[in-house]
Amino acid sequence: MQKATLSILGCGSALPTRKNFPSSQILEMRDKQYMIDCGEGTQIRIRQMGIKTNRLGHIFISHLHGDHCFGLIGLISSCGMLNRTADLHIHAQADLEKIMEIQLSYFCTDLPFKVIFHSINPRKHELIFEDRSVKVFSLPLKHRVPCCGFLFEEKPRDRHILREMIDFYNIPTWRIPKIKQGENFTTEEGEIIPNEVLTTAPDSPKRFAYCSDTAYSIKIIPLIQDVDCLFHEATFMEEELIRAKQTQHSTAHQAAEIALKSNVKKLIIGHYSARYVHQNELLDEAKAVFENTFLGEDMTVYEI
Amino acid sequence: MQKATLSILGCGSALPTRKNFPSSQILEMRDKQYMIDCGEGTQIRIRQMGIKTNRLGHIFISHLHGDHCFGLIGLISSCGMLNRTADLHIHAQADLEKIMEIQLSYFCTDLPFKVIFHSINPRKHELIFEDRSVKVFSLPLKHRVPCCGFLFEEKPRDRHILREMIDFYNIPTWRIPKIKQGENFTTEEGEIIPNEVLTTAPDSPKRFAYCSDTAYSIKIIPLIQDVDCLFHEATFMEEELIRAKQTQHSTAHQAAEIALKSNVKKLIIGHYSARYVHQNELLDEAKAVFENTFLGEDMTVYEI
Repeated sequence: MQKATLSILGCGSALPTRKNFPSSQILEMRDKQYMIDCGEGTQIRIRQMGIKTNRLGHIFISHLHGDHCFGLIGLISSCGMLNRTADLHIHAQADLEKIMEIQLSYFCTDLPFKVIFHSINPRKHELIFEDRSVKVFSLPLKHRVPCCGFLFEEKPRDRHILREMIDFYNIPTWRIPKIKQGENFTTEEGEIIPNEVLTTAPDSPKRFAYCSDTAYSIKIIPLIQDVDCLFHEATFMEEELIRAKQTQHSTAHQAAEIALKSNVKKLIIGHYSARYVHQNELLDEAKAVFENTFLGEDMTVYEI
Repeated sequence: MQKATLSILGCGSALPTRKNFPSSQILEMRDKQYMIDCGEGTQIRIRQMGIKTNRLGHIFISHLHGDHCFGLIGLISSCGMLNRTADLHIHAQADLEKIMEIQLSYFCTDLPFKVIFHSINPRKHELIFEDRSVKVFSLPLKHRVPCCGFLFEEKPRDRHILREMIDFYNIPTWRIPKIKQGENFTTEEGEIIPNEVLTTAPDSPKRFAYCSDTAYSIKIIPLIQDVDCLFHEATFMEEELIRAKQTQHSTAHQAAEIALKSNVKKLIIGHYSARYVHQNELLDEAKAVFENTFLGEDMTVYEI
């Protein structure tokens, strides 16, 4: 079975700590890479984790706070030095293009690839991107500035062919892709072999939701219902609930409540305030509400 | 004796590696901190090294390549969150202010301190800054874009008072500062006590030179003659001399030759190309020419 994975490059919040870089993740789905947020040091983490980014074509920026986008210019600049040629697409609020324009024109002259900005409306829940295998939707969040999360939804996967039946009916190789997609096969004698004889059901497509930065918001629950994996920010402990409300962030308890109410399969928390040296207390708080919670940690890869 | 130290935050070159962040250093002289260059991740290294930056007032940027300045916006932004109130002065080529203007106005509204840009002419060797204890001079270097290094020169230190002589002549405390600066003392009887009786010679003031990025350039030799410590880039090994010339960088051999010809007391090399996983070969190459060479390493503090 083809795995989907989430590599956390940084899961700190505004102030980096000894352990945690600012926000950035790479989601791998169907052999493609999608970056979510790009805080300062993202390109450094990529190298520290030994990630090759040749299958990275799209970067999604949740909102225009520095800890979610200051790493873009360094990443783009280094991609240029490494002779990347494939277009790089950045999905973000329109202002980002203006902010980056002068930097790109000063520091990234003669880039051997194009940087293409796509404007997101963070207030809308809508399809913002799709390719052959994945759909990406925006998830309006509740923060001090306009901000949206992202829902990554795999398109239906190919059915598994039954090798012995393919051999039995002597089906030529060029027919296989269509059969994987559900087509029947007609023999030279005109006999129709139903697809169910030749294949078994595909693996169920994966869904991953990213919700950061956000205050506790029940509005997202119907949008992320039943996802395989939810990354939800947990900046504070419940004892800092007032501070969480003021800054429009969530507590670990609240993140877990969203996970529970959304019936997600797995929760990963992150975006920890620098005040917490050990994040296990945040994990414990979340686990008390939603057992299948994992502590987001820099330089760690999670299966979706 | 009051030490002067150099903390290397990053001594990689354009592409960061697992070990080396892009260029940044903090020089401590007379209890003040001076930052030289500010590549991406500088604020992360500051936290990883546990450095308090409350004595940092001035940042000097050698040139406008990303690996020497992409960390500024994150550093400034975080200083704001940490409620810094003291002005922060940035000494750099005039273009930097224009490039940073839109970022500062978007990401750093309501900073509780002022960011003040001071324009450097990198083609001139001149005094660009001085305070009570230090003078800073620009050092024109030879690079693909206008670039200058920096010479930090401590002003003469105070003379050491001889406590027993001060007691013998019953000299009041309020006279001590002037005596440390070389003044004689006149007793109530009108007797003049020469300063040499009351004090011994001060420690000699320290001089530190930073030369990065630069091709081999004999023009800097008279400007950095006899410094206590020279940081000189050593991007390549001598076997990559052609590449060094093309990119206007130096080899470890060349860095050592500059150190030797300038009669410096100590050489620290850095700004290594990402191609070198172990930098000991660069150190060996430099040591063969100039024995008192040290390998610049991230997160390491050197005595000047």
